[in-house]
Amino acid sequence: MLAFVQHSGNVNFQYAVGFDAESSFHVFCPENPKLNLVIVPDLEGERARDIFKGEVLTYSDIGYHRKRKEGVSNPLAESLFELFKSRDIDEVAIPEDFPAKLAFLLREKIPVRVEKSPFEKRRAVKNEREVELIRLSCLACVDSLRFLMRILSRKRKCEELRRLVELRLFSRGFLAEDTIIASGVKTCQPHWKGYGEVEGHIVADIFPKDRESGYFGDFTRTILLEDADEEIVNMLKACVEAKEKAERIVKPGVLAKDIHYTVCDVLESYGYSTLRNQKKRGEGFIHSTGHGVGLEVHEEPRIFENEDRIEKGMVFTIEPGLYYRDVGGVRVEDTLVVRKSGAEVLTPCEDYVTVKF
Amino acid sequence: MLAFVQHSGNVNFQYAVGFDAESSFHVFCPENPKLNLVIVPDLEGERARDIFKGEVLTYSDIGYHRKRKEGVSNPLAESLFELFKSRDIDEVAIPEDFPAKLAFLLREKIPVRVEKSPFEKRRAVKNEREVELIRLSCLACVDSLRFLMRILSRKRKCEELRRLVELRLFSRGFLAEDTIIASGVKTCQPHWKGYGEVEGHIVADIFPKDRESGYFGDFTRTILLEDADEEIVNMLKACVEAKEKAERIVKPGVLAKDIHYTVCDVLESYGYSTLRNQKKRGEGFIHSTGHGVGLEVHEEPRIFENEDRIEKGMVFTIEPGLYYRDVGGVRVEDTLVVRKSGAEVLTPCEDYVTVKF
Repeated sequence: MLAFVQHSGNVNFQYAVGFDAESSFHVFCPENPKLNLVIVPDLEGERARDIFKGEVLTYSDIGYHRKRKEGVSNPLAESLFELFKSRDIDEVAIPEDFPAKLAFLLREKIPVRVEKSPFEKRRAVKNEREVELIRLSCLACVDSLRFLMRILSRKRKCEELRRLVELRLFSRGFLAEDTIIASGVKTCQPHWKGYGEVEGHIVADIFPKDRESGYFGDFTRTILLEDADEEIVNMLKACVEAKEKAERIVKPGVLAKDIHYTVCDVLESYGYSTLRNQKKRGEGFIHSTGHGVGLEVHEEPRIFENEDRIEKGMVFTIEPGLYYRDVGGVRVEDTLVVRKSGAEVLTPCEDYVTVKF
Repeated sequence: MLAFVQHSGNVNFQYAVGFDAESSFHVFCPENPKLNLVIVPDLEGERARDIFKGEVLTYSDIGYHRKRKEGVSNPLAESLFELFKSRDIDEVAIPEDFPAKLAFLLREKIPVRVEKSPFEKRRAVKNEREVELIRLSCLACVDSLRFLMRILSRKRKCEELRRLVELRLFSRGFLAEDTIIASGVKTCQPHWKGYGEVEGHIVADIFPKDRESGYFGDFTRTILLEDADEEIVNMLKACVEAKEKAERIVKPGVLAKDIHYTVCDVLESYGYSTLRNQKKRGEGFIHSTGHGVGLEVHEEPRIFENEDRIEKGMVFTIEPGLYYRDVGGVRVEDTLVVRKSGAEVLTPCEDYVTVKF
């Protein structure tokens, strides 16, 4: 029998098992629901039994501590081999990011293949409970932007604005890390968090996690200040148009690449560079159109040049951005859920406002 | 030449490179300082060049995107092989948690061994700057305990106390997740976060990360309430004595196991079970004595039955705990730094107070 082995720290473990812990493993077989067990350190046994619905084995139960004391050289791998034997497991599938050391040891005695966890794809399609949890995080994003507009002033540096936004989110139960509140020409780096004076325009990219549920929201707006560069205004116009056009074509059955190329079409029609037309290498629209949002802020589906078919219940972002080294960068981003008839935007916010100081 | 390859997401990458990013790699040779490069996605190139002192290569630079467009089946691995060849790298060392998929692919064409990153051991010994950063997080822990004592009341549940403690920490620049504020008999689970009414005693385990520096502190106290169980009071007395005795033997040259067995000696002298005497399987002192604290809350050195020699500058915890299913659990924990003459406690707090409501 083929068994999947997922390690803790991987979000598929957390999704399938209901908790996360150090040095733990989930062993299961999609074809044989009887095989569904977790292996946890002894001190996690009690907690695991409270939460996980399948079988719970501690390191003691699988003979790890005995082997370690006997001086067996790879006690964890040896304990797993015994377990596999006792459960008629003769082949193992592990995810791409499974720890290499254990993967090498397993391969010495049993066929091991690298395969995406079946939970990876399953997680891409959300049920209504999950959509409502993501919506909470998305509404916290929109609230954060409105709050940012209220506290914005020339006297506050980007890092202070970020601190205040993240503190407000935390007090409401959301953890936002690496929130981007960036201004000036260095916004040409998409992941630059932003430091120093506010000038010209502000890119605010906010992606909080609900600390209770673990679900993320993801949202970006570009705020134009009175002294915004004309080119920046034009870039933003192109991105807003690209986002709106792409959102309108979303529905079940459309391909990821169709959404991405819709964004490229609009940006190219404005004369900007994309990864497709390569008008200017390393500048223009230099990333993908979007990504799934759930227990991870970046997960399936990817919205890029790929042929993945969009399904009802998928939640992902659409986030056109343009970046030029001498001018700066802009980006607008919504998180949306795919309904039968099209996209429902979970981050409703029509403000692309020019702020005067 | 042998090269080490570290992947991003691993804290040794962050320690060596100065930032973290998705899907990035650090390639270096301890014997040849000329080989010291990072490979990052194109959109991280600018940021990487700002921060990293070695060579920066983007995915485009190593030919990844070209290969991908040509339909090469493993474009990243193939790009890495070309890079290795051009730099005379004929053997590769990867850490235990290196992603298995890439590890398997590498091994098809080049000898690959799993080896601890040289940064793992280097990180265990802190310089003075690091000690001062850890001290900041440790003092935030002690402040949190004092704050907890002030807000403690029968009307507040554990989850509310945790929320208030974590919010105060966040407002001061520290991120505390999974803070344990646990009460009642379920404290017999060492990692139980705590929910519901306050009764008998409270275990408060606080381990915030300085969001600016990334360095942790780690600290636990057990607060006795007026209605504390007599056995709990006795268990706490044993743990405090064990902690103090173990702290007194810390100095450069002592072995990790000597510290651990000092704790066991005291707890056993009170009649309690340890992993060594196994008086009661799964109860008593069921975890190790401590662990290093730094950019990770659990890192080298481990303070358990191992023979690691303690060095000046190491920072680690000493945390005796006792757990019995019918009674509950207690734990006391300090973080300390090893000085020439002995331990300097970074979490100075002599309060093991009985609180009356």
